[in-house]
Amino acid sequence: MAVATQTLEQLCINTIRFLSIDAVEKAKSGHPGLPMGAAPMAFTLFDRYLKFNPKNPKWVDRDRFVLSAGHGCMLQYSLLHLTGYDSVPLDQIKQFRQWGSVTPGHPENFETAGVEVTTGPLGQGVGNAVGLAIAEAHLAARFNKPGHNIVDHYTYVILGDGCNMEGVASEAASLAGHLKLGKLIMMYDDNHISIDGSTDLAFTEDVGKRYEAYGWHVQYVKEGNEDLDGIAKAIEAAKTISDKPSLIVVTTTIGYGSPGKAGTAGVHGAALGGDEVVATRKNLGWEYEPFEVPEDALKRFRTAIDKGATAEAAWNDRFAAYEKAYPAEAAQFKQMTAGELPDGWQKALEPIKQNEKSTRLLSQDCLNALMPVLPGLLGGSADLAHSNMTVLKDYPDFQAGTYAGRNFRFGVREHGMGAVLNGMDLHGGLVPYGATFLVFADYMRGAIRLSALSETGVIYIMTHDSIMLGEDGPTHQPVETLASLRAIPNLLVLRPADANETVGSYEVAIASRKRPSLLAFTRQGVKNLAGTSSEGVKKGGYTVVEAANPDLILIATGSELALAVNAAESLKGEGKSVRVVSLPCWKLFDEQPQAYRDSVLTPGTKRVSVEASASFGWHKYVGSEGATVSIDTFGASAPGPTCYKEFGFTVENVIATCKKVLG
Amino acid sequence: MAVATQTLEQLCINTIRFLSIDAVEKAKSGHPGLPMGAAPMAFTLFDRYLKFNPKNPKWVDRDRFVLSAGHGCMLQYSLLHLTGYDSVPLDQIKQFRQWGSVTPGHPENFETAGVEVTTGPLGQGVGNAVGLAIAEAHLAARFNKPGHNIVDHYTYVILGDGCNMEGVASEAASLAGHLKLGKLIMMYDDNHISIDGSTDLAFTEDVGKRYEAYGWHVQYVKEGNEDLDGIAKAIEAAKTISDKPSLIVVTTTIGYGSPGKAGTAGVHGAALGGDEVVATRKNLGWEYEPFEVPEDALKRFRTAIDKGATAEAAWNDRFAAYEKAYPAEAAQFKQMTAGELPDGWQKALEPIKQNEKSTRLLSQDCLNALMPVLPGLLGGSADLAHSNMTVLKDYPDFQAGTYAGRNFRFGVREHGMGAVLNGMDLHGGLVPYGATFLVFADYMRGAIRLSALSETGVIYIMTHDSIMLGEDGPTHQPVETLASLRAIPNLLVLRPADANETVGSYEVAIASRKRPSLLAFTRQGVKNLAGTSSEGVKKGGYTVVEAANPDLILIATGSELALAVNAAESLKGEGKSVRVVSLPCWKLFDEQPQAYRDSVLTPGTKRVSVEASASFGWHKYVGSEGATVSIDTFGASAPGPTCYKEFGFTVENVIATCKKVLG
Repeated sequence: MAVATQTLEQLCINTIRFLSIDAVEKAKSGHPGLPMGAAPMAFTLFDRYLKFNPKNPKWVDRDRFVLSAGHGCMLQYSLLHLTGYDSVPLDQIKQFRQWGSVTPGHPENFETAGVEVTTGPLGQGVGNAVGLAIAEAHLAARFNKPGHNIVDHYTYVILGDGCNMEGVASEAASLAGHLKLGKLIMMYDDNHISIDGSTDLAFTEDVGKRYEAYGWHVQYVKEGNEDLDGIAKAIEAAKTISDKPSLIVVTTTIGYGSPGKAGTAGVHGAALGGDEVVATRKNLGWEYEPFEVPEDALKRFRTAIDKGATAEAAWNDRFAAYEKAYPAEAAQFKQMTAGELPDGWQKALEPIKQNEKSTRLLSQDCLNALMPVLPGLLGGSADLAHSNMTVLKDYPDFQAGTYAGRNFRFGVREHGMGAVLNGMDLHGGLVPYGATFLVFADYMRGAIRLSALSETGVIYIMTHDSIMLGEDGPTHQPVETLASLRAIPNLLVLRPADANETVGSYEVAIASRKRPSLLAFTRQGVKNLAGTSSEGVKKGGYTVVEAANPDLILIATGSELALAVNAAESLKGEGKSVRVVSLPCWKLFDEQPQAYRDSVLTPGTKRVSVEASASFGWHKYVGSEGATVSIDTFGASAPGPTCYKEFGFTVENVIATCKKVLG
Repeated sequence: MAVATQTLEQLCINTIRFLSIDAVEKAKSGHPGLPMGAAPMAFTLFDRYLKFNPKNPKWVDRDRFVLSAGHGCMLQYSLLHLTGYDSVPLDQIKQFRQWGSVTPGHPENFETAGVEVTTGPLGQGVGNAVGLAIAEAHLAARFNKPGHNIVDHYTYVILGDGCNMEGVASEAASLAGHLKLGKLIMMYDDNHISIDGSTDLAFTEDVGKRYEAYGWHVQYVKEGNEDLDGIAKAIEAAKTISDKPSLIVVTTTIGYGSPGKAGTAGVHGAALGGDEVVATRKNLGWEYEPFEVPEDALKRFRTAIDKGATAEAAWNDRFAAYEKAYPAEAAQFKQMTAGELPDGWQKALEPIKQNEKSTRLLSQDCLNALMPVLPGLLGGSADLAHSNMTVLKDYPDFQAGTYAGRNFRFGVREHGMGAVLNGMDLHGGLVPYGATFLVFADYMRGAIRLSALSETGVIYIMTHDSIMLGEDGPTHQPVETLASLRAIPNLLVLRPADANETVGSYEVAIASRKRPSLLAFTRQGVKNLAGTSSEGVKKGGYTVVEAANPDLILIATGSELALAVNAAESLKGEGKSVRVVSLPCWKLFDEQPQAYRDSVLTPGTKRVSVEASASFGWHKYVGSEGATVSIDTFGASAPGPTCYKEFGFTVENVIATCKKVLG
């Protein structure tokens, strides 16, 4: 094939392919296969349909594009560069996968303007996209008015075989079908190759039929390497289907154009190699230098700049009209999408400090109090609403037909819920929360980690936070869960002790718009304690009961703070001076100045921790001479108070441990 | 309905219902709804089809029954008691969900003989069942001979809506369809109710169609409350389908028989309450006292004892004939299913101690060396075989048609893989392993926790164990992963430093048949170090470089042990006395006698840890005056060595940290 015979569209598609090939080749690392095979569908989408403004990647009403097959990120970086995003100049393409570049090995929203979500761990992008589409549907239902469509955009996804094998994507796709998210359109790069080889090795299900079972609209493009009009027709048909999400199964050849490696696993995750690059150039009639972008192609791609500016300008006009007709709504919309919180929202929480009950019920009080003052707040539970206490009294469900609802029903889909929450957050405009039992954080950890990495403000409401869960037994009782979550960078784990601290935990979580929070709440009732405060929570740890020149510091979290306070009181009666410290959030405490930390955990003073959880991690605070009252085995099925006692969570045992440490 | 009009079968079914009702009522806790609705299908299965011997719950060729909807465990306990298992006497039914009972709140294989796997966390049982069916297919293919069917049993499952919403079940079901596991038969208790209410809230997909898409045979029983013959016919039809797993969608009413609560979420997870129990007794014509078992019903149930004895005796005869015809195979089969390892298997690993390369390649050497000497060893990767280095050179794939193969292809299904591995292990006879990148332990943590809780010997092979993974970036680089796994009770996390320690790690993992092991291996090459030993690994931690009266102890794991050794050498040159300790397995080290631990980590001696991982948890070993060379942020996309250096994993930084600690 000679260059002369290439259409301009083919030239553009090959430009994507060779930028990808060249970048992977220079990095000697990366995944050329997907960009080579999926370039035709991606080009068609970006060229003909995707609504975006390269000069304002954050334009609120842009279409969202998610590359769920994140390993193929050179496809996305190529398109961002070619269509004129300032975030990805050519020299950054040349720095693919290098230290400090904006072109990391998988797409990262916090590194690269134009990347909506962080993908790579397979299947997550599908869940994110469902969340993005939910956010669109919700904001549209709340803010659009007759004649004023200010929220009206699509969510497009490219995903691969790997995503379709992952359960997190299955869960999210089932939910999307249930919710009839008509503006979600996914293109499945059906290339029959995964890392280990042909999908015949492990993946022979009928994917299209499965999505139909979920309630999706399913189409097929058989010649995805060549048939641009077929791709276009399918996208157009998908856009006309408003009551079902769409899957377009696009059959392609991985590594298309590589004479020696196309259609093989060899092109999935490794550079083609010099000789094969030469052969591929020849095969596709590519006569340009490495990283050279043909002028005609660039010109075509860069029409996106004018198109985008025009589209955004039209939207700005529409928004101005809306603002005139609906000033209050427009102001709220602007505030929400700017990620700003209304002044004084914290006041709504103040009365809750007087309530006294389980922290999960206090959490429910907080949610219900915050709903009227935080218009972006919304969420729900993975089928445990009445256990997690996340039901909002005065708000309808978010369902097909009632997208303005703020009560979510995620179903028994914890991992999907997490991925969906990340998408809802990264859409902008919302403060999403999701709930389940604390122990099932394990089911959604893949998504929680990405909440933290991708700098979301997602709030996880995790109830039944210890063996006090009781009869359900060890499968449902968290033991090591808090430790495993505290270890995650950039995640705030908060375990409040009573009403003051529950309020404080919500204050932290709501204010943290770039750092997710995970709130651990009790099943059982707790008493309000003297000395606790919401301000203390913000420092992560603080003194609840002071003692002059303490012989010992007792450190506790959550429901065990009461044990510590009672033990300290007893020890005081025996002439010991014991300070009690509440440590609801380790990460926030670690971020305090050394002087503050030393004032709370005075160096050289012996310490004992009390938490109905594993000792793992506590030695940082109790030190070499300290001890922990903790549980380092799995729990047991019995009434909560029995478990508590049998595993040593009694005032007597705390006192005995203190005495042992005091010597 | 009066008792007189009840058939004996209805009486039996109601016996199950009322034992369940009474037990939940007495415990004031539990889930009566599922046992009441699923009693007809469970009774039909146990009465007419399930092959089991109540007096020998461990009979090798029994059918396996899995209650994936584990919250309905009173269904299973009732059946175990009624059919004559000694493990569940009536007084234990009365102790449902109480401290020390064998009738915990969810089925636990390690508590109750007759319970095959531990369920409750939804969806896991489906994966376990796929693993059980895989084990059956594999052992049958290897050991059965013409005229000698010594392995020939079914795996039956009862699952609910919750299981069908979970991604882990989707992954496992897709794999089962691919593998054409004809002897896997699942009954879906399709009662349209989940905890939050009607499944209309969140789950409206066409489940049967989805399973068809996976390649399953799907049948429907519309009147699952009454139509026992319909249920029976469906099970019989399922048994005739040998090339597809079967799903039988049985439509039932949750809490069947309760006039006030049947068909509602109110009966899902709470006791009926006194009045409703009375009404239910009246409604079902049940005139017996609480916990009373009608004599006729018991007699019918207890026919299982004779049936079971007869079935096992017949099998024993068949096995005796097999043993005569194939003595070597029979001996191997007996050894494998007894969970015994052949004498001297460790010898196969000895030569590998001389090899020098990445620990993932050393792992591959170990696997290939062990295959010929450990007939039960088998496993594979979640589509990363050539990265995890789990490909076995001389063994075919386990696929439909080649079930004797020992190379598994799990697809990109980490969570499903974990649940399947648990089932393979708990079937008996096998030593299963599964592999992925270490960071993706997050995807399968729900299953890993159950590996530990249910006392399996599953081996997790986790490669790319640090930021040295490199260019794939922070989504793929474990940082907090080791800490999160070390916190799990009963899980051995091993991170070897070189060939000696890799061999030692396999020695530990293979020998640990009641405790799962997770092996963390490097992507990059490592050098063999003087002073390491496989024996040291068995103690969890040991001295690699001794020093007289050390000023400092350097503690490291895995690839960072080399940094510690080099730093110690340099410090020695500067007149410091530094001991180097390798700590490949914290849990094993913690289990050593205090005197041994003190000989390695001498109290009062300052310490520095070196591990390319989070500091979380290390303070237990470095103490209050120690320091860690660690990474407490997410990683970055760049070549591994660049990441290593930028994040401070250099001999220079280790030395500098040591000097700071030495003061």
